[in-house]
Amino acid sequence: MKQHFATIEIATKGPGLYAFTDRAVRLLADTGLNDGLLTCFVRHTSASLLIQENADPDVLADLESFMRRLVLRDPKLYRHTTEGPDDMPSHIRSALTAVSISIPFHDGRLALGTWQGLFLFEHRDTRHIREILLHAIGE
Amino acid sequence: MKQHFATIEIATKGPGLYAFTDRAVRLLADTGLNDGLLTCFVRHTSASLLIQENADPDVLADLESFMRRLVLRDPKLYRHTTEGPDDMPSHIRSALTAVSISIPFHDGRLALGTWQGLFLFEHRDTRHIREILLHAIGE
Amino acid sequence: MKQHFATIEIATKGPGLYAFTDRAVRLLADTGLNDGLLTCFVRHTSASLLIQENADPDVLADLESFMRRLVLRDPKLYRHTTEGPDDMPSHIRSALTAVSISIPFHDGRLALGTWQGLFLFEHRDTRHIREILLHAIGE
Repeated sequence: MKQHFATIEIATKGPGLYAFTDRAVRLLADTGLNDGLLTCFVRHTSASLLIQENADPDVLADLESFMRRLVLRDPKLYRHTTEGPDDMPSHIRSALTAVSISIPFHDGRLALGTWQGLFLFEHRDTRHIREILLHAIGE
Repeated sequence: MKQHFATIEIATKGPGLYAFTDRAVRLLADTGLNDGLLTCFVRHTSASLLIQENADPDVLADLESFMRRLVLRDPKLYRHTTEGPDDMPSHIRSALTAVSISIPFHDGRLALGTWQGLFLFEHRDTRHIREILLHAIGE
Repeated sequence: MKQHFATIEIATKGPGLYAFTDRAVRLLADTGLNDGLLTCFVRHTSASLLIQENADPDVLADLESFMRRLVLRDPKLYRHTTEGPDDMPSHIRSALTAVSISIPFHDGRLALGTWQGLFLFEHRDTRHIREILLHAIGE
């Protein structure tokens, strides 16, 4: 049994979903592992991880709109407002989605379903460089 | 250290929670592993995973009702509507719950709490066959 | 490759976030492992796990307030009401947050981002002793 670490950096330009399936698949191939478990971990509290449909971009737009309606940007609702009206809603949106996702891989292939894509979910307005740590264990 | 893979298929008949604790426990016993980590991963974007109370079925009904109120089926709210009024709400409900859950096991027993059961959360109306991939690593 | 198990108990006094980063870091150091994956698993269905900002306590208060607004304590909304008005909302709040979180560690350090802290999210009013199981695998 062996393990490997890698980091994916994503430059974001405002709220929404940023695909990184291809990069994760390539990094997994680089490890030479055939069977095991890949864990993705995002190192932030105002961006999160999501597995969602990779086919219709409308799904991604609808997810962003839903989150915008669910977690209002009304400063009167929050105490933590010093970092801007998008900050506290970003923490809440992160809490409602995932910080880590673990995906088995078998025969060298990540076991995602046909329609599943890996996404970083950015919640903040300003540009950020986001870090996703990958950990693969297997043989 | 060894690892094992298994797949659980669940035939669903509309939205709600489908228990699979017993099947996961049996598959784990089949591996012969005593101590390690079991990861459940659902291969879909309109069904998800949940650990919830296994005692009172009312809890499961209340969870489904809450999700129905939270994620409205109003087509005016969404762009992605071609697959029916339950489709985009299903993606959102999946995003708000889990795609992977990892549970330690020790002395041959899955470390679930007394009231914890493993469930597939189906979000769509029509019948589906859902696939949950299990990965166990340990010794 | 080796693995270790440990349990963290947290005595809670009502809804809100209880930090356990320091305890997790110490337990990881005790294992002597340098590189691997740490999984935290909460053994309850009315308390959950969260990684959130560790700097401003207002963030924690705002998260609790948001959850209170999102998941109303109105008994008319639920069937499962015998255990009190806070019980079914607690199950729902748990379903919307995490039951397991996996974090890579490297060179003996848990790979949390600068602002990330590990929290138990208690959802119930009365005092509880909550159990978080830690599983570390690595070398």
